[in-house]
Amino acid sequence: MYIGIDLGGTNIAVGLVSEEGKIISSASTPTLAQRPYQEIVADMGRLSQKLIADAGYKTEQIKGIGIGSPGTVDNEHGIVTYSNNLPFANTPLAAELNKYLDIPVNIENDANAAAYGEYVATGAKSDSFIFITLGTGVGGGIVLGGKIYRGFNCAGGELGHFTMIAGGEPCTCGNRGCWESYASVTALIRQTEAAMKANPESLMHKIAEEEGKISGRTAFRAEDLGDEAGRAVVDKYIEYVATGIASMVNIFQPETIVIGGGISKEGDRLLIPIKELVNKMDYNKYMPKTEIQIAKLYNDAGIVGAALAARK
Amino acid sequence: MYIGIDLGGTNIAVGLVSEEGKIISSASTPTLAQRPYQEIVADMGRLSQKLIADAGYKTEQIKGIGIGSPGTVDNEHGIVTYSNNLPFANTPLAAELNKYLDIPVNIENDANAAAYGEYVATGAKSDSFIFITLGTGVGGGIVLGGKIYRGFNCAGGELGHFTMIAGGEPCTCGNRGCWESYASVTALIRQTEAAMKANPESLMHKIAEEEGKISGRTAFRAEDLGDEAGRAVVDKYIEYVATGIASMVNIFQPETIVIGGGISKEGDRLLIPIKELVNKMDYNKYMPKTEIQIAKLYNDAGIVGAALAARK
Repeated sequence: MYIGIDLGGTNIAVGLVSEEGKIISSASTPTLAQRPYQEIVADMGRLSQKLIADAGYKTEQIKGIGIGSPGTVDNEHGIVTYSNNLPFANTPLAAELNKYLDIPVNIENDANAAAYGEYVATGAKSDSFIFITLGTGVGGGIVLGGKIYRGFNCAGGELGHFTMIAGGEPCTCGNRGCWESYASVTALIRQTEAAMKANPESLMHKIAEEEGKISGRTAFRAEDLGDEAGRAVVDKYIEYVATGIASMVNIFQPETIVIGGGISKEGDRLLIPIKELVNKMDYNKYMPKTEIQIAKLYNDAGIVGAALAARK
Repeated sequence: MYIGIDLGGTNIAVGLVSEEGKIISSASTPTLAQRPYQEIVADMGRLSQKLIADAGYKTEQIKGIGIGSPGTVDNEHGIVTYSNNLPFANTPLAAELNKYLDIPVNIENDANAAAYGEYVATGAKSDSFIFITLGTGVGGGIVLGGKIYRGFNCAGGELGHFTMIAGGEPCTCGNRGCWESYASVTALIRQTEAAMKANPESLMHKIAEEEGKISGRTAFRAEDLGDEAGRAVVDKYIEYVATGIASMVNIFQPETIVIGGGISKEGDRLLIPIKELVNKMDYNKYMPKTEIQIAKLYNDAGIVGAALAARK
C-alpha cells in the first residue's frame, strides 16, 4: 500500500493507493498556499495518518509516500527547488514529512506524477509515453522505458513551451507563440471571446450568458447547436492542439500519447479530428504509428502517479 | 578496432576506427545510388577489407562494423526499412555485408550515428545529449543515458519537423512551418535571395557573383564587410535557429546540445548569439542550464558514431 499526495495551489489531495494503482480512500484540505511550508506538510502528514488508520493499516504496512508538487523538484534529495505557485525555495518536503510518518518519501513534479499515473493506467507497457494536459496551461510529462524523464536538471518536459508560432501570442513564460498560448483552456477562452466579438449573432453569446461566463466549453456547446462561429473556434482550436501533438510525434515517435485536462472530457469529438490531423502531419509514413488516447484517470492521475512513482 | 561506414546518397565513406573513436584510416567511393543494393554493399565490403588489410589487421581483430544509413532503420534485425534517398525497402544490409566480412553489423539511422559520434567526442558523459545538423535539411539525433533514442518505431528524432511557425513556409515533408523550413541552409539561401531582391544595393549581389552562386555563406560574408542587409539576414536566421534550440531545451532540458552541419563552421559568431537568445527563452530560470556547443567531428561524425554504436 502507498500514499499519494497531489499538492496543488488550491488543494492538498491525499490518497491511499494499492500496488496496482487503485485509490482505496482519499481526502483533501485547502492548501492555503501562503502558509509556511511546515504547516502545509503538517496537513499532509495528518491526512495521511488518518487515511492509514481509518483503513485499518499500520504505518509499517505503507511502503512509500509519493508527492506530486508544482515546480522544480530535486527528486534525489527530496527537495522542491522552486515553485511559482507555492512559497517553496529549496524546501525539504521529504524530511519535513518524515517528522509525521517514518516512510520513504519520493517527490516528483506534479505534471510528471500525473504522466506517470496515466502511464500506469494504460498498462505500463508503453516503451515511450507522453502525457499532455490541456488546462490553464499546457503541461506535459514524458515516461521513457518505464521511467519518468526529467532532463539533467529535473526541469524537463515543459512541452507547452516549444515555439509553435514564432512571434505570435504572448505566453505566461515571457516568450511569444508557445504551444500553451494557443492550446490551453485560457487560450481557447481568448479565441472564443474574439469570435464572439466578431460574430454578434453567434449562439456563443446566449450560452455564455446562461452559464454566467465564457468558458472552454462555450464554443463546443455552440457547435452542438449548429452554430457556425462556434464550429470555427472549435476547428481552429483542435488544429492548434493537433499541430503540437504532431510536433511531439515527429520529435519522439512515442508509442503512446495521452491527452488529459478539462478539455479532454470532450472525448471523441476532440480525439477523432486530432488523430486525423496528426496522422497527416506525421513525418513517419512507413513505420507503426503513435497511439493517441484520452486520459483515463483524469483528476486522480496525480495521486496515483505520485504514489506509484514512490514504488521504486 | 571497428569499421564505421557513413552511407550517403553521394558517397560511401568507410573508416577504421579505434575503441576511443579515432579514425585510423579511411576511404570512400561514389554510392551510385540507383544500383541494386547488393552492389552498394559489395563496395562497402571491399573498402572495409582493404582498410583492414592495409592497416595490417586480421578480420578477427575487428570487433564490429557500424553503418549509418539514410532512412528508417530496424536496428534489431539489421534492415533498412525505407529510405528516401536510396533504393532501400526492407533491405537486409547487415546480412548482405556479412557475405564479405563475418563480423557483427549494427545499423543506425545516419543522423543518429552522427549524433552518437558527436556524443562520444564530447566525452560521452552527458546524461542527455541532442545533436542538430543545419544542412540541406535540419536533422537531429538524441542520446539519452548513453543510448541512441530511436522512438518505439525507430523513426524518432526528426527534430527539424516540429512546427515552429504554423501555416508558414512549405516544408519538404509536406507540412508547413517546420523548423527545417526556416533553419536549414536551403532556407537560409531562400532568405538571402529574398533580401537580395529587396536590397539591390546590398554587397550580397557582388559576393554571390564572385562565388558564382548564392550560398549559405553569402549573407555571412556580406555582414563581414559591414553590409546592413546581410546582417539582417544573418540576425533573423540565427533567431530561427535559436528559437528551435530553445524549444528543444524546454522539452528535454538536455545536458548538452551540439550544433553541426555546414553552417556550424561559422563558429562563435553563430554560437554566441544563439546562446544568448536560448538563455532568454529557456523556461528554466533556477536550475543548471544546457551547455550548447559547436560540433567537433563535423564530417567524421558519421563514421565514428556508426563504428562506436557497434561497440555494444
